[in-house]
Amino acid sequence: MSNTANKKHNCTTLCYIEREDSYLMMHRVKKEKDINKDKWVGVGGHFEEGESPEECLLREVREETGLELTSWKLRGVITFSTDTYPTEYMFLYTADGYTGEMIECNEGNLEWVKKSDVYDLPIWEGDKVFFRLMKEDVPVFSLKLRYEGDTLVETVLNGVNVE
Amino acid sequence: MSNTANKKHNCTTLCYIEREDSYLMMHRVKKEKDINKDKWVGVGGHFEEGESPEECLLREVREETGLELTSWKLRGVITFSTDTYPTEYMFLYTADGYTGEMIECNEGNLEWVKKSDVYDLPIWEGDKVFFRLMKEDVPVFSLKLRYEGDTLVETVLNGVNVE
Repeated sequence: MSNTANKKHNCTTLCYIEREDSYLMMHRVKKEKDINKDKWVGVGGHFEEGESPEECLLREVREETGLELTSWKLRGVITFSTDTYPTEYMFLYTADGYTGEMIECNEGNLEWVKKSDVYDLPIWEGDKVFFRLMKEDVPVFSLKLRYEGDTLVETVLNGVNVE
Repeated sequence: MSNTANKKHNCTTLCYIEREDSYLMMHRVKKEKDINKDKWVGVGGHFEEGESPEECLLREVREETGLELTSWKLRGVITFSTDTYPTEYMFLYTADGYTGEMIECNEGNLEWVKKSDVYDLPIWEGDKVFFRLMKEDVPVFSLKLRYEGDTLVETVLNGVNVE
């Protein structure tokens, strides 16, 4: 769920790299103008013209972490709708294989966070929904999250409204 | 794989409705300016702003066939790349439940075609690839199809080049 601007591609990737019982999270503290300012998110970003979802995934992970993914899994597609930005379609992945050494990222600080602890971080409310779906190993899902400001006002899972 | 123009959303849905051993196919003979002119394709079309993939799917099927889907399944996402149009991301579905009566469609003629016969129709070369993947019940896949004109020049399945 990276920075969104009008001219960018409306498709993005969002990846949670796994190591033992932790996810690699980015604390977005480095950019002033950032829809995710001060929040913790996965790594990823906008598609470049012509890229497939995997091509975007591998490039973004490489750019932001220095790691080269060797094993990944599509977990779902998130329709991320706000009252400020155009709707974004986020291809959500987990990755459990990679090579290389982690670098510093200019978009935020990278940290391994225990999966059970992510709910207590300042994250988007809807992210808790997909963290649970990933934990329950729900097959590739479609999740629509509609926000008004920072407030999650609608959650639709595979076409069905969720309370 | 519906008509693509610069100003349209780059995400689309493509749906093959199933009845017994047939798919509902559309013979695109009604529009002059149509990337799919004279080809046989499924039903579907471009996302409208704010729509989730399912919302687009249900609306397009309703508009083009008069049918209301009650059961559907995401089969894959296709990165459809040409040398003429911006890259299109097609959410590919099959649907095995619906209500309502079929209407005439102004984009083409709707016909039920035996699944084993679709390979002999004038269809996009890459469509044969995903028809096989659907037949083999491959889990939600990512398929990149790159064309030069009508010629398929690159096929990448889940990040791996296919001959």
